[in-house]
Amino acid sequence: MNPGPESAAAAFSLAIIAGGGEYPPRLARLAADRGHKVYVAAIEGAAAPADFGLDSSHAYRLGQLGRLLNELKRRQIADIVMIGALPRPSFGSLMPEPSTLKYLPHFARAFRGGDDHLLKGVVQFFEGQGFRVHGPAEIAPELTAPLGPLGRRKATEAARDAISRGFSLLEALSPFDVGQAAIVADHRIVAIEAAEGTDAMIARVADLVARGRLKFDKGDGVLVKAPKQGQDLRVDMPAIGPDTLRHVAGAGLSGVVLRAGNVLVGDSGRLGALADELGLFVEGVP
Amino acid sequence: MNPGPESAAAAFSLAIIAGGGEYPPRLARLAADRGHKVYVAAIEGAAAPADFGLDSSHAYRLGQLGRLLNELKRRQIADIVMIGALPRPSFGSLMPEPSTLKYLPHFARAFRGGDDHLLKGVVQFFEGQGFRVHGPAEIAPELTAPLGPLGRRKATEAARDAISRGFSLLEALSPFDVGQAAIVADHRIVAIEAAEGTDAMIARVADLVARGRLKFDKGDGVLVKAPKQGQDLRVDMPAIGPDTLRHVAGAGLSGVVLRAGNVLVGDSGRLGALADELGLFVEGVP
Repeated sequence: MNPGPESAAAAFSLAIIAGGGEYPPRLARLAADRGHKVYVAAIEGAAAPADFGLDSSHAYRLGQLGRLLNELKRRQIADIVMIGALPRPSFGSLMPEPSTLKYLPHFARAFRGGDDHLLKGVVQFFEGQGFRVHGPAEIAPELTAPLGPLGRRKATEAARDAISRGFSLLEALSPFDVGQAAIVADHRIVAIEAAEGTDAMIARVADLVARGRLKFDKGDGVLVKAPKQGQDLRVDMPAIGPDTLRHVAGAGLSGVVLRAGNVLVGDSGRLGALADELGLFVEGVP
Repeated sequence: MNPGPESAAAAFSLAIIAGGGEYPPRLARLAADRGHKVYVAAIEGAAAPADFGLDSSHAYRLGQLGRLLNELKRRQIADIVMIGALPRPSFGSLMPEPSTLKYLPHFARAFRGGDDHLLKGVVQFFEGQGFRVHGPAEIAPELTAPLGPLGRRKATEAARDAISRGFSLLEALSPFDVGQAAIVADHRIVAIEAAEGTDAMIARVADLVARGRLKFDKGDGVLVKAPKQGQDLRVDMPAIGPDTLRHVAGAGLSGVVLRAGNVLVGDSGRLGALADELGLFVEGVP
C-alpha cells in the first residue's frame, strides 16, 4: 500500500515554458513533487535547461516555436504553463525556423496591441493548437501570497486605513485596465503604477523622499498590490520578489500588502524571512 | 463722460501675495487693467517687486507675516489673492519677526499635514484675519484654459477616445484626492500623476519611450489635466506652462487637453503659438 504523493491521482504531463528568474525552477520542482511529468522548454537568453535539474529540459529560441509544438505533440503533452521573465528578444532569437513560419501571421496580429494584447494572443495561439494553458498558481498555489503575514511583523492598526484606501483605489482603477499597485503614505496616495512597473514606482517614491519632496513617518507607508479586474492570471499574475522588498525598505515604507492567492511571491517562507530582516511586514489579505 | 474701464465699477483694493514664475506679474497687470488698486507682496526668494512695474510692491520674507498683515490693514485692503510658486523656504526666510510670533501656532498645526492641508491652513488663517481670499481665475479668468483649441491644431478624432478615457479616469480617482493628470497612449493609461507632479510624470513616459519599454504611434498620446474634486481652486489650481508643452512634445505625445476655466495657462495666446511651433494641440474642454 504505497499510494505515492497525494496528488498523483491527478498528475499529468506538463510542459513549463520557462523564462528567467527564480520562479520557473521552483515551479518545475513543485510540479514534479506533485507527481506531474514535467518537460521544461527553457527560452534561450532567459533560462537554461541546467537550471532545472530535470532530464527533460531543452532550450528553445523564440523562433523555434514550430519545433517546440512538434516536440510537445510527440510527447503527448496537452497541458502547458508559461512562467518567468522574458528579455527583450534579439533579432537572432526571433529568426523563425521553417516550421515556425506558418504561425507568424497570428503573432504579427498579436504584436500590434500592448503587452496585454500580446499575452492574450499567445494564450489564444496555444489554445488554438489544442493545448490547455494553466496558470502557475493552478499548478502550485504555494507560489502565491498566503493569507496573513509572511514574516513575524503584521500591518499596524495605523496602516490598516492606508491599506483599505489603497485597495479601494486599485478597484476604482480596475475598469481602466491600469493600477496593479499603489503606494499610500502620509494618509494619502503618493504613487500609482501604470506602464512603468512596480519597481520604478517604488524608486520614484524613494527619490521624492530623498529630495525632501515627500515626507512621512517611518511606519506610515505601504505598498498595495493586486491584479486588475479581468487580468489573465494564467499568464499575467502580478509578482513580487526579494528585490521588491529591498526597494520597499529603501523607500522607507513599512510594508507590503498583497491580494492573497493572486500575487506570485515565489518562496513565501524565504520572503517572510527577508521581510523580518528588513523590518517590514508582508501580508496577504482576502 | 469717461466711465473708465468697464469693470471699474466693481474695482477694489487687492493684494497679490506673489511667488515666482510668470503668473504673478501677469495677474498684477490684468488686475490693474480691470481698475483694481493692486498692492503686491513679493515673497523674497521667489519674486521681486521690480518684476511688477507697480509703485506699490514690497518684498516680504515668510517670517514677516505680521508686518504684511499690518500693512494690509493700514491700506484697508480686505481682498487678497495668492499666486506663484514658492521655493523651499530657507531657515532665514522663515525666521519670525516679533509681530509674526503670535501667528506661529496656527502654522505649526497646518504644517503637520500634507501640502493640501497647509494650503487650507493658509486660507483659513487669512479668512480668520478678516480677509476675503480670491482665486487668480476669479480676478482674471483669461489666465485659465479657454474652451476650444489654444493654437491652430485640434485634437484628432482618434485622440477623442483617449481624452474621454483620461477624464473618466481622473474623475474615478478624484474621491481618493489624487490624479490631477494622466497620460493616455497606445489606447491605454500609461501614467497617472500622484505626488511626483505633472512634469515628472511626463518625463517618466519620455524615458519609457526612449528605452523602448513603451511604444505608441506619433499622434496617439495625450496628456489630460483637470482639478481634483474639492480642490481649492483659489490657492491650488492646476497649471501648465511653456515647459509643460516642451516636455509633452519631447515625450512624443500629440497634445494636451485641459478642463476649461479650471487650469491656469497664463497667456493662452502665447501658449497656443508655442503649441503650433511644437506641432501639438492644446485644447480646453467643458
